[in-house]
Amino acid sequence: MSANAYSQGLEKTPANFVPMTPLGFLDRAAEVYPRRTAVVHGSLKQSWAETRDRCYRLASALTKLGILPGDTVSIIAPNTPAMLEAHFGIPLSGAVLNAINCRLDAEGVAFILRHGECKLLLVDREFAPLIQKALLAVPNPPRVIDINDHEAPDGPSIGEADYESLLASGDPQFPGHWPTDEWSPIALNYTSGTTGDPKGVVPSHRGTYLMSLLQMTNWPLPRAPIYLWTLPMFHANGWCFTWAITAAAGTHVCLRKVTAANVFSAIFEHGVDHFCAAPIILSGIASTPASERRPLPRRVRVLTAGSPPPAAVLEAVGAMGFDVDHVFGITEISGTPVSCAWHDEWDALPAEQQGRLKARQGVRAAALEHLMVGDTVTLEPTPRDAQSSGEILIRGNTVMMGYLKNPASTAKAFEGGWFHTGDVAIVHPDGYMQITDRSKDVIISGGENISSVEVEEVIYRMPGVLYAAVVAQPDEKWGETPCAFVELKADASNISEDDVIAFCRRSLAHFKCPRRVVFVELPKTATGKIQKFRLRAMAGSQEAITKLAV
Amino acid sequence: MSANAYSQGLEKTPANFVPMTPLGFLDRAAEVYPRRTAVVHGSLKQSWAETRDRCYRLASALTKLGILPGDTVSIIAPNTPAMLEAHFGIPLSGAVLNAINCRLDAEGVAFILRHGECKLLLVDREFAPLIQKALLAVPNPPRVIDINDHEAPDGPSIGEADYESLLASGDPQFPGHWPTDEWSPIALNYTSGTTGDPKGVVPSHRGTYLMSLLQMTNWPLPRAPIYLWTLPMFHANGWCFTWAITAAAGTHVCLRKVTAANVFSAIFEHGVDHFCAAPIILSGIASTPASERRPLPRRVRVLTAGSPPPAAVLEAVGAMGFDVDHVFGITEISGTPVSCAWHDEWDALPAEQQGRLKARQGVRAAALEHLMVGDTVTLEPTPRDAQSSGEILIRGNTVMMGYLKNPASTAKAFEGGWFHTGDVAIVHPDGYMQITDRSKDVIISGGENISSVEVEEVIYRMPGVLYAAVVAQPDEKWGETPCAFVELKADASNISEDDVIAFCRRSLAHFKCPRRVVFVELPKTATGKIQKFRLRAMAGSQEAITKLAV
Repeated sequence: MSANAYSQGLEKTPANFVPMTPLGFLDRAAEVYPRRTAVVHGSLKQSWAETRDRCYRLASALTKLGILPGDTVSIIAPNTPAMLEAHFGIPLSGAVLNAINCRLDAEGVAFILRHGECKLLLVDREFAPLIQKALLAVPNPPRVIDINDHEAPDGPSIGEADYESLLASGDPQFPGHWPTDEWSPIALNYTSGTTGDPKGVVPSHRGTYLMSLLQMTNWPLPRAPIYLWTLPMFHANGWCFTWAITAAAGTHVCLRKVTAANVFSAIFEHGVDHFCAAPIILSGIASTPASERRPLPRRVRVLTAGSPPPAAVLEAVGAMGFDVDHVFGITEISGTPVSCAWHDEWDALPAEQQGRLKARQGVRAAALEHLMVGDTVTLEPTPRDAQSSGEILIRGNTVMMGYLKNPASTAKAFEGGWFHTGDVAIVHPDGYMQITDRSKDVIISGGENISSVEVEEVIYRMPGVLYAAVVAQPDEKWGETPCAFVELKADASNISEDDVIAFCRRSLAHFKCPRRVVFVELPKTATGKIQKFRLRAMAGSQEAITKLAV
Repeated sequence: MSANAYSQGLEKTPANFVPMTPLGFLDRAAEVYPRRTAVVHGSLKQSWAETRDRCYRLASALTKLGILPGDTVSIIAPNTPAMLEAHFGIPLSGAVLNAINCRLDAEGVAFILRHGECKLLLVDREFAPLIQKALLAVPNPPRVIDINDHEAPDGPSIGEADYESLLASGDPQFPGHWPTDEWSPIALNYTSGTTGDPKGVVPSHRGTYLMSLLQMTNWPLPRAPIYLWTLPMFHANGWCFTWAITAAAGTHVCLRKVTAANVFSAIFEHGVDHFCAAPIILSGIASTPASERRPLPRRVRVLTAGSPPPAAVLEAVGAMGFDVDHVFGITEISGTPVSCAWHDEWDALPAEQQGRLKARQGVRAAALEHLMVGDTVTLEPTPRDAQSSGEILIRGNTVMMGYLKNPASTAKAFEGGWFHTGDVAIVHPDGYMQITDRSKDVIISGGENISSVEVEEVIYRMPGVLYAAVVAQPDEKWGETPCAFVELKADASNISEDDVIAFCRRSLAHFKCPRRVVFVELPKTATGKIQKFRLRAMAGSQEAITKLAV
């Protein structure tokens, strides 16, 4: 802009420019709704005033222990009050919050503690044995604090202090170390190591603040939602709902173990009306025996991501009273800024067709600046023909700052000025994108690409199927062929390999149909994602992968 | 932060840092809901695809006419489609949008055109005579385009072209001039000139983007609201709802004239479920004769601001089906980031008590960083004693960049690193603030401060009173005494001056009661605010004020 009337006298000042951060949501909830329930955990209920107090005590105590701004402070815990408090207390000390996936093995945890240069680690006692083992592989081990959650199973004490005594040593009047630059790290979230070492994703205060507002506007969140923590908080800070539910002055309902029965209990006992869950958890809910079902006291809203929810599952849980939205995101973008935005006119379609529409990942949220499916190299957009595929590319303010100490991966991820998700999608004529595969999940058979998702969707329509996953198996003639892994419902054990193949042949080209069908209980991650790398190993694939973070 | 693992390799790139702007909401609505109705105006319905097309045509046409980034382009119009399109098309040309209050007189308009250095002016034909007169007082008059709105009364053609032919000359494929810095001006909104010349408030792309998200999260907006434009868009860009409703892919229902009957029509004909309105409009709705009332087809949500809604009005419209939230904002903060956040337990209170609670302006939204009532000079917070008063001070990202070409006023407004609103408030023990007056509205009688709002609230409780306003009148003995102006309902003409004074004496200390009561139709601004400066003149106050912008 050339010089004009607006060129001077309109500078940033402390009055009109404040570094954005989601940490301020805590003070606001405590100021306005001090007595409202902030956290529910089993028999525990904690108000917003108490929760604020505890978070500032944590920040103060960490500072007293010598934690400095920019230090990494880690926590390994399921979805407990301490885990939520860590999302405010650790960054309020100026430190960077590193929430570790508690499904990792000791080697995986040790890698993160070493790579992230962890200075202090909060350990839920259930994971004390894991951490004891992991610390043996960390040359400069962090200080350790035990979290003795009242709902945790017994475990050894391995820390120098207990979380509650740590809080007691802190000052609730501590002012907090607030970011002076919104472009500064708030967290360190390790992502999958499917193709090498895990990478440390670093979101900024700016990005997580904006993702919090994105989640609130895109779902959208009503006032004071009662939110159940089925999604692990260690998964990209619970897609920023740790902060967004706080901004909405809602209630965080904690949950150590995610089961369909626990979800139902939370709905009935605590009035839960919102949660996020992988489709696999919805499948579990849909499979609840009729004898154990009760009519829901109200509609319950669900965001699901990770894989497309099967139409049959959507229909079943919809009839039970769950309103499911399908969203898409990955750790590097701090949450789910892509969603299958619904059109009212779709309500009139048959359930199966609704399911097909909802299986699409969809479109960008209003607060995501740019989303494109395009050529990875040329960045040319993929035609909207529902056939051509390209990579999902994102440009926006919720994209991570980069990978910690990994400039090569960061540069590669941001090549051409777009964040490369590694997910492959087609684009429908209406502009809705649909993931066909992770790049590595595409099966190449006789030179033809086979979308494992497409085959899985067909198998999911088969009565009796609880879970299905399709991976490549090596084949001398074709290079690769599809191998299906199927987990059956308890009451459907008389399905054979031939039945599955015959069922697929009714809907799919023959070359896409599984050559082999294995009936197993599918291995899943903490977030309910099926661990395809394990299945690939079982199928005899060449890939030898030993870690998976999310 | 000292050097640490996060100190390098995490820089801003085009992939993770995009200048924030509300302009992108338009593309997103058009991409996802191209056929959904974006704009309703009388018999006109316009889809999001069409609306996007028209906005880009406008931007392109302005560019072809030689408008450069940083030029000021003005519009004077009521709430019509052209006014909405200007909110996207003008900034998409790189120009700064200046929406002029159409209730100003020619001198007021001329001042704005001169001071804002307007290069081009879009004129709704109803205001052509006003503009003809105003332009006589502008040495370098702007180019003029006529807007021949189909619902406008006849008016002369005064421009070089008509708005529709201007759009026809534009290219819908125009890429748009997007801000390269989020800290750049998007609009120029002149505020009240009650104490001198009007001031040109300049909000940024960053600030209006964040205010849009604040409005969406604080109300909060559901998906696809059907929003009625009772609040003028020239009033701080309609508190950013021009952009926020677009972000929600809702429907903008236009309205040239705000009357209770028109509001009811829009609810029944167009399915309106949200609007913003001054309490005076709610009073009009509450006074609708029973014969003209119909049960609402659904609850209708209302934000009200400008003055506290009287309890009787709240109760009446609540019973009719309107859910009213009381919010606070001023032009300099781009919208209403303060609101009387409701507590569920208040639902059980008697209506009058609910009204008293809701009359408070309240607390900050989660997306407003800092709100304080404090001493104007020392910046010490005012005690929460519901008695001591201080100035409302704000620090946050939705605060304006400053006043155009007015560094002295800008510096004064931002003194001490806080934006000084000029509004005086008390703070209740629960932290909710309540405006007692604009500084200039305080009546000082015998050295005692009298809150004109407090006296007005009492008068409003009197049956038969439609509107009330209290101002200072000069008094030889006391300095000032309260003078009340009262507008009665049509069916309540037998109330006397003595009746009003006697009614007040039942609730108020005698020195606070009006010494004089004048029965008149109260002068109001376009936004329904009572024009106290006119009343002060009538009461014989020394203040000689000739302009009022909002």
